[in-house]
Amino acid sequence: MGGMTISQKILAAKSGNSSLRAGDIVLADVDLAFANDITAPISIDFVKRLGVDVFDRGKIALIPDHFTPNKDINSANQCKIMRDFVKERDLPLYWESGEVGIEHALLPEQGYIKPGMLIVGADSHTCTHGALGSFATGMGSTDVGFAFATGKSWFRVPESIKFVYKGKRNRWVVGKDLILYTIGKISVAGALYKSMEFSGEAIRELSMEDRLTMCNMAVEAGAKNGIVEPDEITIKYLEERGIKEGDYTIFRSDDDAEYSDIIDIDVSQIEPQIAFPHLPSNTKGISQIERDIKIDQAFIGSCTNGRISDLREAARVLKGNKVAKYVRLIIIPATVEVYKQALKEGLFDIFLEAGAVISTPTCGPCLGGYMGILADGEVCISTSNRNFVGRMGSKKAYVYLSSPAVAAASAVAGKIVHPDEVVK
Amino acid sequence: MGGMTISQKILAAKSGNSSLRAGDIVLADVDLAFANDITAPISIDFVKRLGVDVFDRGKIALIPDHFTPNKDINSANQCKIMRDFVKERDLPLYWESGEVGIEHALLPEQGYIKPGMLIVGADSHTCTHGALGSFATGMGSTDVGFAFATGKSWFRVPESIKFVYKGKRNRWVVGKDLILYTIGKISVAGALYKSMEFSGEAIRELSMEDRLTMCNMAVEAGAKNGIVEPDEITIKYLEERGIKEGDYTIFRSDDDAEYSDIIDIDVSQIEPQIAFPHLPSNTKGISQIERDIKIDQAFIGSCTNGRISDLREAARVLKGNKVAKYVRLIIIPATVEVYKQALKEGLFDIFLEAGAVISTPTCGPCLGGYMGILADGEVCISTSNRNFVGRMGSKKAYVYLSSPAVAAASAVAGKIVHPDEVVK
Repeated sequence: MGGMTISQKILAAKSGNSSLRAGDIVLADVDLAFANDITAPISIDFVKRLGVDVFDRGKIALIPDHFTPNKDINSANQCKIMRDFVKERDLPLYWESGEVGIEHALLPEQGYIKPGMLIVGADSHTCTHGALGSFATGMGSTDVGFAFATGKSWFRVPESIKFVYKGKRNRWVVGKDLILYTIGKISVAGALYKSMEFSGEAIRELSMEDRLTMCNMAVEAGAKNGIVEPDEITIKYLEERGIKEGDYTIFRSDDDAEYSDIIDIDVSQIEPQIAFPHLPSNTKGISQIERDIKIDQAFIGSCTNGRISDLREAARVLKGNKVAKYVRLIIIPATVEVYKQALKEGLFDIFLEAGAVISTPTCGPCLGGYMGILADGEVCISTSNRNFVGRMGSKKAYVYLSSPAVAAASAVAGKIVHPDEVVK
Repeated sequence: MGGMTISQKILAAKSGNSSLRAGDIVLADVDLAFANDITAPISIDFVKRLGVDVFDRGKIALIPDHFTPNKDINSANQCKIMRDFVKERDLPLYWESGEVGIEHALLPEQGYIKPGMLIVGADSHTCTHGALGSFATGMGSTDVGFAFATGKSWFRVPESIKFVYKGKRNRWVVGKDLILYTIGKISVAGALYKSMEFSGEAIRELSMEDRLTMCNMAVEAGAKNGIVEPDEITIKYLEERGIKEGDYTIFRSDDDAEYSDIIDIDVSQIEPQIAFPHLPSNTKGISQIERDIKIDQAFIGSCTNGRISDLREAARVLKGNKVAKYVRLIIIPATVEVYKQALKEGLFDIFLEAGAVISTPTCGPCLGGYMGILADGEVCISTSNRNFVGRMGSKKAYVYLSSPAVAAASAVAGKIVHPDEVVK
């Protein structure tokens, strides 16, 4: 019997079952449970029906990010349910419009995510938080309601796939390209209910923000979670948020841990990636695409690519350039902190000069919410995580996924292009 | 037989009927016809059904401002109809997201409105443009489609009411307070199908932006148009936009012009005004209201009060203050130019520090569009123009209208207060 992976070790620690194996069912203590304005009302209803207190006021986060500032009456009423519950229970982990951000960007940024935590969120992209060496996974609203009430969740211990990234990244290649390439390689069901463990020298060289992007999209390969072992970059990211080494537990995979697969990827062979409609796995290297994919809209933002490094990449491309005629470029900083930082660094000036729209933080168009919905027949290049039929509006629209630099360059060219075609 | 009012003179000049009187029906040449993303598709359909060219490519403006960036699939499809028409006819007066603004703020700002013009817009607040000494009125989309095709519109020549404002304004009293007070005095049908002619020393001392606010709300008293005779302030405003005195015709009311009524208003008796739910005429001076009208949201923006002077007033109040807990303050610059100017002047820093949301330009919540819709039972103070039942979302919500300073102060206090209570 081999050793355990980092994911398995966290579940072992949180369930008090040190000998668990993949396939076991465990009941484990969660360190953080959260929901957003779409999912929270159902979780809240569950808690109210049980007629109990929440298990720990400091371990529950409610984040109105999807349709805020309120898109319509229904979303306004959803937010009101959330806010009323927060007031009634005096819950500290709540952010109003003007302070809020996309949950998966906000929580790590504000220091609520630490290595070794077990995290459940009523949102599929909860897997994002594994970038900090936590076990984080999305669940249904009722399951999260159960966690709100009891502090516990059931898990089937997942098998793990180890991805080992080697080599040096090419110019313009970022975490988004690595994960798009990976999903393209294994397909949207390639990691079904498994842990995607991202490792290797090329991961060690990735910024925390790029790692967050990679773990964010683990669910697009069907994974239960994505995870990166903590290292010096993780520790520094936490220190910048006032979190010291004694404040958390670092788990690492054993050398003899069992993996259902080990996949080696040479990143020096990867160029900027484009996921074609209508699946995130429909990826091609940008040199392999047709030369005339015209776009109507470019969107830079979302929990995948709305962080400050993403906006800096976009600015690097947009500086001194103009968005093509009749094309909309919509830039949505993922959090108020990102928004303020971009403002401070002068990125707003570059974006506005280029003719981009800058929205207040919101999930917005990523899930067809608002702030950039597509009409019939329109084409969008988006830095978000899903390009399913109808994801960003009309079922007759076409969404291509890419990195922020490629989306920015495409907005300037009016068609999908490599950033080198715009940045000379 | 007496002389003519400024409104009648413009209709006389444009219809070639120099002896027209109130009540006459005339067919007149329009100098500008425009529509937005809600109304344009119907106007465009009318032109297409006629199978004709537009009468003058340079005199038609299409402005996607209400639900852009696209709120939903329907609004996206509406915008697409507009954009496709603009492309097909190569129309110059079109602004894409990233350049656009609310039509009634954008057109004067960009120098498309001049004294003496006859302007029709498929939007009720087209009366705004009378602030520059033009005759401007809102019409149905089909009527505007007729104007697109023929360059002409039918008018019943309106009677005029002359409002003479005297005295010195009190601290914090702006154009919004004068017009709310006026509508409160005459009721929402007080100027039905009439011209509201704003005159007197207190109008001469008002900035162009405050005059635009006043004319904007003429329709809230049922008026056909609002109008201010051009003066030095008008000429300076035009000069700043490269428009010289020879480029337009100034009309003035005759001394013996016939008015259906002349109403004197002493502005020194006016304090900041609040229009209570659910009519703009439900006004009270702020000293006369209950002391504990709690709010859930404050909105600063719209074609009424989204200009730079409005944002400066808001900033004056917000500087060093914080929005109350659980209250949303949503600030929406009316145009990209206003947005850029506010950024340049450091107003964004003040707004963000206070905890406000800043949106890209859109009509948004004013008409219950998006970006700040109200839930059941919620209370909003808004700088917009209408507080009808359901105007900003739920039919069970309550909207109070005020100036930007009062809205900002109320956001800080969490209840409706005089700016002096927040700015010491």
